Amino acid sequence: MIVPRLIERKRDGGGLEAAEIRELVMEYAAGNVPDYQMSALLMAIYFRGLDRDEMASFMEAMLESGKKLDLSRLRSARIDKHSTGGVGDKTSLILAPLVASLGVAVPMMSGRGLGHTGGTLDKLESIPGFRASLTMVEAERQIARIGCAMLSQTDEMVPADRKIYALRDATATVEVIPLIAASIMSKKLAEGLSGLVLDIKRGSGSFLPKLEDDLELAKAMIDLGASHGCPVVALLTAMDRPLGFACGNALEVAEALDVLKGGGPGDLIEVTFALGAQMLVQGTVASTLEAADAMMRDAIASGRALLKLEEIIEAQGGDPEVVRDASRLPWAPYTEAFVAGRDGIVQSVEPRAIGYGIIALGGGRTKMDDRIDPAVGFVVDAKPGNHVAKGQTLGTVHARNEADLEAGLRVLAQAITIGDDTPSPLPLVSHVVTGRGVVELSA
Amino acid sequence: MIVPRLIERKRDGGGLEAAEIRELVMEYAAGNVPDYQMSALLMAIYFRGLDRDEMASFMEAMLESGKKLDLSRLRSARIDKHSTGGVGDKTSLILAPLVASLGVAVPMMSGRGLGHTGGTLDKLESIPGFRASLTMVEAERQIARIGCAMLSQTDEMVPADRKIYALRDATATVEVIPLIAASIMSKKLAEGLSGLVLDIKRGSGSFLPKLEDDLELAKAMIDLGASHGCPVVALLTAMDRPLGFACGNALEVAEALDVLKGGGPGDLIEVTFALGAQMLVQGTVASTLEAADAMMRDAIASGRALLKLEEIIEAQGGDPEVVRDASRLPWAPYTEAFVAGRDGIVQSVEPRAIGYGIIALGGGRTKMDDRIDPAVGFVVDAKPGNHVAKGQTLGTVHARNEADLEAGLRVLAQAITIGDDTPSPLPLVSHVVTGRGVVELSA
Repeated sequence: MIVPRLIERKRDGGGLEAAEIRELVMEYAAGNVPDYQMSALLMAIYFRGLDRDEMASFMEAMLESGKKLDLSRLRSARIDKHSTGGVGDKTSLILAPLVASLGVAVPMMSGRGLGHTGGTLDKLESIPGFRASLTMVEAERQIARIGCAMLSQTDEMVPADRKIYALRDATATVEVIPLIAASIMSKKLAEGLSGLVLDIKRGSGSFLPKLEDDLELAKAMIDLGASHGCPVVALLTAMDRPLGFACGNALEVAEALDVLKGGGPGDLIEVTFALGAQMLVQGTVASTLEAADAMMRDAIASGRALLKLEEIIEAQGGDPEVVRDASRLPWAPYTEAFVAGRDGIVQSVEPRAIGYGIIALGGGRTKMDDRIDPAVGFVVDAKPGNHVAKGQTLGTVHARNEADLEAGLRVLAQAITIGDDTPSPLPLVSHVVTGRGVVELSA
Repeated sequence: MIVPRLIERKRDGGGLEAAEIRELVMEYAAGNVPDYQMSALLMAIYFRGLDRDEMASFMEAMLESGKKLDLSRLRSARIDKHSTGGVGDKTSLILAPLVASLGVAVPMMSGRGLGHTGGTLDKLESIPGFRASLTMVEAERQIARIGCAMLSQTDEMVPADRKIYALRDATATVEVIPLIAASIMSKKLAEGLSGLVLDIKRGSGSFLPKLEDDLELAKAMIDLGASHGCPVVALLTAMDRPLGFACGNALEVAEALDVLKGGGPGDLIEVTFALGAQMLVQGTVASTLEAADAMMRDAIASGRALLKLEEIIEAQGGDPEVVRDASRLPWAPYTEAFVAGRDGIVQSVEPRAIGYGIIALGGGRTKMDDRIDPAVGFVVDAKPGNHVAKGQTLGTVHARNEADLEAGLRVLAQAITIGDDTPSPLPLVSHVVTGRGVVELSA
């Protein structure tokens, strides 16, 4: 394999063979192909794209570069949910115990915050003692025993993907849909899944704001899953405003607990139940989405879902009492309400401003090794379309000190716009994409 | 400077500021920007190009990364000639002494063979004892004393260019005209020139076979020279067949000696004199091209040009007797004639086939540290358009052993086509490009 010839061929619009991609990824993971050749190839791919076969070969090679979770002895289905990332998106914290409590195994490997978006691992680690860095054997045993583990990617899983992802981040080659699809699917297939539900975020707060890109990503991942016998269903959901009210690590855990106890914000419940119903149907414990919905309501009403979360937290070293007493989570010492400066209609609540605001308060990272403050963040009650009166509370800042309170109030003043028009926020769940095609839901 | 943001901006079609390019190149040369970011940027430049200002900034930064020859104390003009590379192109070996013998200093920094093309350094080193790796001080002193030095690029000159060039070679980002122009001109301006004549090769055996690319390169280099007060004239010359007869290192030195003694192939003389006349007019020792032509004929007839070569060889440790006795050059032990297989007209003599044939005989490199056999190669007497009879000698193979003789004959059989049509080879010198524009010469 002469790497410059491969780069040249892709650069000039030609195709790469499966065996070439396989050797390239393997040799790159082994350190025998230098970073500078891989990054030149990735930039050529940025301009020329990858066809379906090339994308599948990339994913196969990354998957083969490491180990998979071995869940073959489980009798139950193994279903995960993956989100492309948003602000206030705590659906994973609810879905993992909820779906596992209904007899579907959930091997959930999550990430940390990226850019302006939050990460499930950071949220979980706000629970005192919680340990997400399970070994593969620990995860396999825990899933066999209680049906769910919520863990970070291990060094043994898809090492080629981890190396390529870091290189893409440093070389402005992240925004390539086939590479995004191959990267996500290599990680998900390494979980040994029998099905996957994707939550593809749309709108200004998402990584791919354009609908056509979201649909392309959905189709790419459905194709990749199909080639491995793993059915994939994608829901396109709104990320033109935060999901739910709480934005910030421990605040989001508390809100997830609210939902598992039968409360919580309506938009969060709607999106979570839409995703959960797909997981339960994929997991063959429900035959229709309606039946799945009823099962989830029952699991919450009966306390089974909350009990499952308690089991998971306990199994992973966390303080199980938090499920009954959210005051055991870390809480910020300073809070202050943000109030409307005028009468009017909430025009928008910008997720990016909120997300970067959490980082500014210390609740996210600007470098990979930054420590985060789990307690800080925002609770934003206002939603686009709400009629508000001057002086009405729209949200609350949770900060470590008084100076940060001021900074947080400025963030909310920037993120929340009040005007006189009737805004048109995106529908919470707008499209369902499966191997059979795209269905646009009516509002 | 956040490098991924620069890569992203170029990738998306935006421009880079002069200060950004300067810092990037300096930090890259210093090892503070990793290869993988530079190669991603180079690939983005491949697709998006560089405008004139960006190209000039790249060149400036590479030039500033090292030292220049200090020839400021010379009273004479300092003119070099640069070729984009061909097969059988030994014009440098003739022009350096010829022009220097007429009172114009020639600080000639040359390269080694690249791809299918030969390199002046490799040819010079076939002269027993010849040392091309002069220090900058040695080169400055020799030029002050005898008006010419023929040397390799030193480590102190344009180190950023050397590092970027090596990276481009390994990442399929060589073929970018503004980067080619900036690379060549940074090296040439480091020679402290007062003028430069470019020989841009056209046709199947050249690196840029398309006329529009050749003209773009000429104009780019003229612009870059002008921004440094260094006038540049470019001649576009034919490389759809080898130049002269001899192709191979020592064989080409012998043919250059023939020309300096008043003999040699007509096509070689025509191209050499066309380039030399431009050098002499740029060097202000001749006021017209016609006067320059007469001066060169006189320098050859009087033996002054040959004497100058003897001085150069002696100054650089070579055997000066070779100028009178070419048998002191290395000669291959085996030679065999290649004869026409039929009556007809020579349709083509393919330079790439001949160039790669020299490498196959051991006279060129496939890796940078290969040793080369200076004696081997081809003397191809046949030219496109020649009427030939079956059994007539068209060329001779010079080889190290009998097996290579056979291989060499196969190369010539592949390179030389005989047919019945009248071919239309490119004019030897087709265009003159200066800051005032392009003049196409009539045949």
